[in-house]
Amino acid sequence: MAVATARLEGRSIAEERTRECAALLARAGPGVRPATLASVHRPVSGPFELYRRRQQKSAEALGIRFRDEALSGTSGDAELYERIRSLASDPTVHGVIVEHPLPAPFDFHRAVDELPVEKDIDGLSTSSLGRLVSSRPIHVPAVARAAVRIARHYGLVPPGERVAVIGRSETVGLPLAHLLLERGTDATVTIAHSKTADLTSAISGVRTIFSCVGHPQLLDRSNVPRGAAIIDIGLSSTPDPARPGRSLSVGDADAAALEGWARAITPVPGGVGPVTVAELMGNLIDAWARQERVA
Amino acid sequence: MAVATARLEGRSIAEERTRECAALLARAGPGVRPATLASVHRPVSGPFELYRRRQQKSAEALGIRFRDEALSGTSGDAELYERIRSLASDPTVHGVIVEHPLPAPFDFHRAVDELPVEKDIDGLSTSSLGRLVSSRPIHVPAVARAAVRIARHYGLVPPGERVAVIGRSETVGLPLAHLLLERGTDATVTIAHSKTADLTSAISGVRTIFSCVGHPQLLDRSNVPRGAAIIDIGLSSTPDPARPGRSLSVGDADAAALEGWARAITPVPGGVGPVTVAELMGNLIDAWARQERVA
Repeated sequence: MAVATARLEGRSIAEERTRECAALLARAGPGVRPATLASVHRPVSGPFELYRRRQQKSAEALGIRFRDEALSGTSGDAELYERIRSLASDPTVHGVIVEHPLPAPFDFHRAVDELPVEKDIDGLSTSSLGRLVSSRPIHVPAVARAAVRIARHYGLVPPGERVAVIGRSETVGLPLAHLLLERGTDATVTIAHSKTADLTSAISGVRTIFSCVGHPQLLDRSNVPRGAAIIDIGLSSTPDPARPGRSLSVGDADAAALEGWARAITPVPGGVGPVTVAELMGNLIDAWARQERVA
Repeated sequence: MAVATARLEGRSIAEERTRECAALLARAGPGVRPATLASVHRPVSGPFELYRRRQQKSAEALGIRFRDEALSGTSGDAELYERIRSLASDPTVHGVIVEHPLPAPFDFHRAVDELPVEKDIDGLSTSSLGRLVSSRPIHVPAVARAAVRIARHYGLVPPGERVAVIGRSETVGLPLAHLLLERGTDATVTIAHSKTADLTSAISGVRTIFSCVGHPQLLDRSNVPRGAAIIDIGLSSTPDPARPGRSLSVGDADAAALEGWARAITPVPGGVGPVTVAELMGNLIDAWARQERVA
């Protein structure tokens, strides 16, 4: 008999993380600079725009100052690097996020590598990634932290058990694999990707699937092992059949097809998304506490 | 009927890599500084001692200058960092290797992070590891390069197919997993380790196993899928039954037990070892060519 698939909501986990942030912020003594986040981006609309608006809203709800560092429409890459160098050396700024991906001639890696690792709250600089590999992370990409927090909250990564990460991007899949492999979490991790010859057999036998491909309906009964849980990190836009001209956010899992088959799925939207924003604020508050010596 | 297990020797692959190095070295024009490798270590015997002697021998056979930078028996960590800073800024030195692991109070990460990424020919600094994650490596740990070179030479990593890496060290297992996942190699990679609950099922169905645990007889017919190939990166010392008081180098695979079961195994010694030293020389020659602008 088919058992209903659990919907793993992220909102309450995000709220809990946000309360931790608020509690740490409240410990600031006199003379401590207010926690400040700077967002560097080009003034164009795109996927980063939505993420940025959410960051701003969450930051302001927590009392974090949000500095919108939009580049002018005519800025070249030299102006970008100079802007980041200036934020890097500004003691009133505790964390900096750089729009990703950036089109040419902007070099994202060169840009974030201008940041000291303490201010790279997105965890994507060369030093941040290198520290993650050698188990000495300062900041880890918020989306990877969010996926692991949800999975742990629901008991989906028992030590030593097999999990799958689908997607090998340096921004999501690979940092996530490292977090899952860390001592203390100890997952046995299979990393699959767009060139995987046989996804079904690659993930056969895994308990939990972390999917971060951005390919709607990638996961269904044909490839998900029966009873597996899915942490759905994919995010795509598709036309909304109910509202012509509007679009819907969808994940990698075909939730309707997997109902009664998967043990549990994080919904999109409402699963990994809200926890990611909360984790990013957590990274900023950690950066602030470290730089302002708030313990 | 059992088919004989192929012995994947490394020596001819090492010789080919060494010929490439010699050809590149021969392109040096007048005024180019001779390729120079510095080895920083404590004057004690241990596993690094054997590796260092092999480096020295291979370097000298190629005409690479080998600088033995032994610390004094009483050196503290400040002396170590100062020594490395001095080599980092010395234009006559093209690559530096630091003994690993280093005991406390020496901080290996802090030491190698004094090197510019171009001179970190062992590929273990924070920047080197971070660049590897984001697919922009300068130097990759020689042992990982060696394992992949052997596997490719024998056609053991068809794109998209499943392989396993057993071991999650920052020095071997994790860099190796990244190399295997790189675009162009495109393996589907399962990373198992000491806390893996069920190794047999975790690696069931994989074509090729890269084992870097250092646990003699870890792999036998009970856990290796029939017909799998094994790249044996493990290295342990065991007493030699034929010569009391002497020891033998052995890998992770029980080669006798796997005869007629595994498709192929790299022997220990004589498999990954010689190729690793050749790859390290390759890294040094690449570093020299880059710094001396030899193309």
